[in-house]
Amino acid sequence: MAISVDTFFLNPDVQGTLQSQIQQMIAEGILSGRFHVGEKLPSSRKLAAHLGISRITVTLAYTELLANDYITSRGRSGYYVSENAPIPPTYAPTTRTQDRVDWSRALARTFTGGDTPRKPLDWHQLKYPFIYGQADPTLFDHANWRLCAMRALGHKDFTPMTVDYFDQDDPLLVEYIARHTLPRRGVTARPEEILITLGAQNALWLASQILLGPDRKAAIEDPCYYSLRDLLVQSRCQLDPIAVDRDGLRPEAITANTDVIFTTPSHHAPTTATMPVERRKRLLERARQLDALIVEDDYDFEMAFLAAPSPALKSMDEDGRVIYTGSFSKSLFPGLRLGYLVGSEPFIRQARALRASVLRHPPGHVQRTAAYFLSLGHYDAQIRRTATALHERRRTLEDAVAKHKLTIAGRGVYGGSSLWMQAPDRIDTTRLAEILREEDVLIEPGAPFFHASNRKHNFYRLGYSSIAPSRIEPGVEKIASAIRKM
Amino acid sequence: MAISVDTFFLNPDVQGTLQSQIQQMIAEGILSGRFHVGEKLPSSRKLAAHLGISRITVTLAYTELLANDYITSRGRSGYYVSENAPIPPTYAPTTRTQDRVDWSRALARTFTGGDTPRKPLDWHQLKYPFIYGQADPTLFDHANWRLCAMRALGHKDFTPMTVDYFDQDDPLLVEYIARHTLPRRGVTARPEEILITLGAQNALWLASQILLGPDRKAAIEDPCYYSLRDLLVQSRCQLDPIAVDRDGLRPEAITANTDVIFTTPSHHAPTTATMPVERRKRLLERARQLDALIVEDDYDFEMAFLAAPSPALKSMDEDGRVIYTGSFSKSLFPGLRLGYLVGSEPFIRQARALRASVLRHPPGHVQRTAAYFLSLGHYDAQIRRTATALHERRRTLEDAVAKHKLTIAGRGVYGGSSLWMQAPDRIDTTRLAEILREEDVLIEPGAPFFHASNRKHNFYRLGYSSIAPSRIEPGVEKIASAIRKM
Repeated sequence: MAISVDTFFLNPDVQGTLQSQIQQMIAEGILSGRFHVGEKLPSSRKLAAHLGISRITVTLAYTELLANDYITSRGRSGYYVSENAPIPPTYAPTTRTQDRVDWSRALARTFTGGDTPRKPLDWHQLKYPFIYGQADPTLFDHANWRLCAMRALGHKDFTPMTVDYFDQDDPLLVEYIARHTLPRRGVTARPEEILITLGAQNALWLASQILLGPDRKAAIEDPCYYSLRDLLVQSRCQLDPIAVDRDGLRPEAITANTDVIFTTPSHHAPTTATMPVERRKRLLERARQLDALIVEDDYDFEMAFLAAPSPALKSMDEDGRVIYTGSFSKSLFPGLRLGYLVGSEPFIRQARALRASVLRHPPGHVQRTAAYFLSLGHYDAQIRRTATALHERRRTLEDAVAKHKLTIAGRGVYGGSSLWMQAPDRIDTTRLAEILREEDVLIEPGAPFFHASNRKHNFYRLGYSSIAPSRIEPGVEKIASAIRKM
Repeated sequence: MAISVDTFFLNPDVQGTLQSQIQQMIAEGILSGRFHVGEKLPSSRKLAAHLGISRITVTLAYTELLANDYITSRGRSGYYVSENAPIPPTYAPTTRTQDRVDWSRALARTFTGGDTPRKPLDWHQLKYPFIYGQADPTLFDHANWRLCAMRALGHKDFTPMTVDYFDQDDPLLVEYIARHTLPRRGVTARPEEILITLGAQNALWLASQILLGPDRKAAIEDPCYYSLRDLLVQSRCQLDPIAVDRDGLRPEAITANTDVIFTTPSHHAPTTATMPVERRKRLLERARQLDALIVEDDYDFEMAFLAAPSPALKSMDEDGRVIYTGSFSKSLFPGLRLGYLVGSEPFIRQARALRASVLRHPPGHVQRTAAYFLSLGHYDAQIRRTATALHERRRTLEDAVAKHKLTIAGRGVYGGSSLWMQAPDRIDTTRLAEILREEDVLIEPGAPFFHASNRKHNFYRLGYSSIAPSRIEPGVEKIASAIRKM
C-alpha cells in the first residue's frame, strides 16, 4: 500500500531546515510503526507540491534517508520503506510527550473496576471451550444469513441501510417482533411499545438509567449476571441483592421501598432455575403491593429442548408493570448486537429519547438483515437445529459429569446452554480456571456472579453451546482431575 | 406465512370453555392485526397437541370460526385467515387494560423534550431535499460496499462477525484508523488511544458522561449542533454558550472555571466557519490557562474540494488535552453508525468501560466491512467522487442563491456540504420550512442550533449532499419566492 501524501504536514514552529523536517517525518513514521516495510513513499514531485516547497529539498531528504537505509529506491518506480529500516519496538511504546493533564482530577466519573470479568478473545482456539453465549460456526446458518445480508444490501434497500432513522427503527423488524416473536412469549405489544436496542445489555442499561437514580432502590437476584450489577452500580441506586433458591427469586424477600425488581424468571442467570407459575403470580402481587416495576430479562428462552417454555412473566402483567427485554444475540450470535425492550408507552418514549442521545439507533443494515432472516423462517429453522444439537451436547455433558462425579448445582428444566456447577468448598474456581487454561480447558468461575457481601468461590459455569460433542467428555475429565489435584 | 403454533397459550384463569377460548384467541389475533389475511393456521392436530387438549375441541372451534367467516378452509391444505375477516382498525388502537403504573412517579429521569428537532423520514421522496448529512444513492459506491460486506460475511471472517468482543474492537479497523485516517489529520495515536463508537453522537455522549457532571462547567459554541447541547444538558453540567464569530469559537470569551470546551474548529456547525491557525494556538493556550480539556468534533473534514484542510486541532496538542472525535457516518452513510474517539489512555480506558456497560461494542460485521472498504482504497475513491460532485453542486447553489438574491451567512472555505443562510429579520424560518414543505422543498430551520437565551429565528441551513444538481436552482427559486410572500 502507498503512503498517502495527505499524511505529511509541515509544522511552522519546528526548528531546523525543511529538509531535516522531512527526514524526521519519515523516520518518525517508520519508528512509530505507522509506515511499514515495503510501503511506497509519495514521489518527490508530489510531496513537494503538497507541502508547497521546492522539489530539490525533498530529493535531498530522500537521498539522506537512502544513505541511512531507512528507504530504498526501485529505479523509476520510486521510493519504499527499506527492509533494513529500524524495526519499531512493536507498535505500543512510541516516545511521546508526557500528558500535562491531571486525569484523576479531569475525569468527573470513572467506570472501570466493576465485577465484569475480562474474557479471553481467543477462546475459539482452545480445545475444550466450555464458554457460554458464543456462536458455533458448525451450527450457524451462514449461507442464509449471507443471503439475507445480501438482500438487505441491495439497491431496493438503499434507504433502510443508509438512512438516519434518528430515534426510529426499521419498521419491518419491529413489526416482526410484534407479530411473531412476542406472541410466542404470550406477550402482545404495539410498535410504539417496542424499542430495538444494541443487544440485551443495552436494553438493561436504558431501563436502569430511566428507572433508577440515587434516591431509588433496586432488588436484584444473588447471584446474578455481573454486567447487570455493574450497570446498576453506575446508576448510583441503592442495591438490594436477594439470594435465590431452586425456583429463582423469592417474592417475599423483596424489601419495602423497592422501586425496581430485576429478574430472570425463564432461566435464572446463572443457576438456570425456572420460576414456577405460582411464584410468578406472587412476584407480580408483591410488585403491586410495593408499587414497584419489574424488569424481566427473558434471555435464552428459545433453547427449550426438554419441555415447552412457560410464557414470559410479562404475559401475566395486567398493570403495565413489567418491562421486558429480549435478545437475538444469544440465539444468533453476540457480535450482532441486537435486542429489544418492550414496555408501556411512557417508558418506551423515554428509552427512545435516551437511546437517540446515546447512539441514535442500531445500524439499519443489521436491523434489516435480521428482519429478513426472521421473516423468511430461517431463524426458526436455526433455533430448531441449535436446540437439537444442544440437547445432544447436554446429554453428553450430563453423562460425563456423572461419570467423573462432578456436582451439578443447577440445570434448566426447559433446556438452555449451560450447567451451574458446584465444586467442593475448599476449591477456588478462579484458581481452578487458571490451572485448566494451561490444559486448553475454559470454564467460567462463579465468583463474579455473587454480590461482594456474599461471594462464594466454589461455583462455576459450564457452557455447552460452542464445544464440539467429542470434546465434552475429555474436557470434563480434565476438570475432575484438576479438582482432585487441588 | 404460517402462524406458528408457539403463539398459542391457554390461560388457566380465563372463564369459559376451552373451545370458546380457542375461538377467542384466533379472533383476537385477527382483530389486533397480529394474524393477516391469507395466513395459514396451525392444523387442528398440531394445535391440539401443543395445547394438550382433545383434537375435537380445536376442530369445533375452527368450525365456528369458519361459520363466522373469520377463517376459510382450502380442502386438504388447511385453514387460513379469511379475506372476509373483520379488518383490524389499523395496528395501533387495540383495546387494552389501562396501566396501573403512575409513570410520572416511576420514571426517575426523563430524556424527552430537548432541542433536537424531529426530522422527516420521507425526505428522499421530496423533490427538493436541501437536507444535510444523508447519503446520496447516486454517489455511493454501492457495488464495492457490497463486495466488502460479502467478504466480511465470509467463512474466514466468521469470528470477527459473530464474536463478542466484550470491551474490545475489530483490530483491523483500529489499525487502519491509527495508520491512515488519523495521520491525514496530523494526529498520531496508538491503538490503546482509540475507541470505535456508534457514530460521532456516541463519541460525544461518552466524552460528556466521563468528563462532566453537576459540579463541572462546559463551554459550547453558540449556535451549535443541537444534539450536542441536548446530551450536555442530560449530563447536568453547567452550560456556558459562547457566541461564535466568522472564525468560530473565541478563546478569550471562555470563562473561568470551565472544565471542558466543545468545539468544531475545522468546520463550525452550523456556520461552517474554519478556525485559523493563530486562533487555534490561542484556544490551546486558553485551555492550558484554565486547565480545561477540549473535545474536538472533526466532522466533514473530508469534503475539502476548495482547499486542503488544515490539520486537526488535536495535531497541535502537546498536553494530551484534546479529545478528538471522528465519524464515517457523514462520509459513507449515517445508518452505518460508526465513529471513533481518540484521546489519552486514562480517558479512553474509562470510555471503553462505559461503552462496554452501555452497549458492549459496535457490531463486528459493520466494523470489518468498513475496515475492508477503507483498506482496499474504496473509501478514498468514494471521497474523491463525492467531493467532485459536491463541488459542482456548491457552484450551482451559489449561482442560484446569487441569482435569487438570497443571503449567505457562512460558507466553508474548504468545502463542506451545506451553506448557512440568513433570511430577512422578520422571517421565522420554522414557519418558512413548513410553507416550503407544501411545495416539496426541505430546508432546515436554524432556531434549534441557538441556545434558548439567544435564539435567532431568521437563519436556515441548505444542505446540498442529497439533492440532484438540476433541482437546485428551481428549489432555490421556490425558497426566494416563499420568503418574498411572507
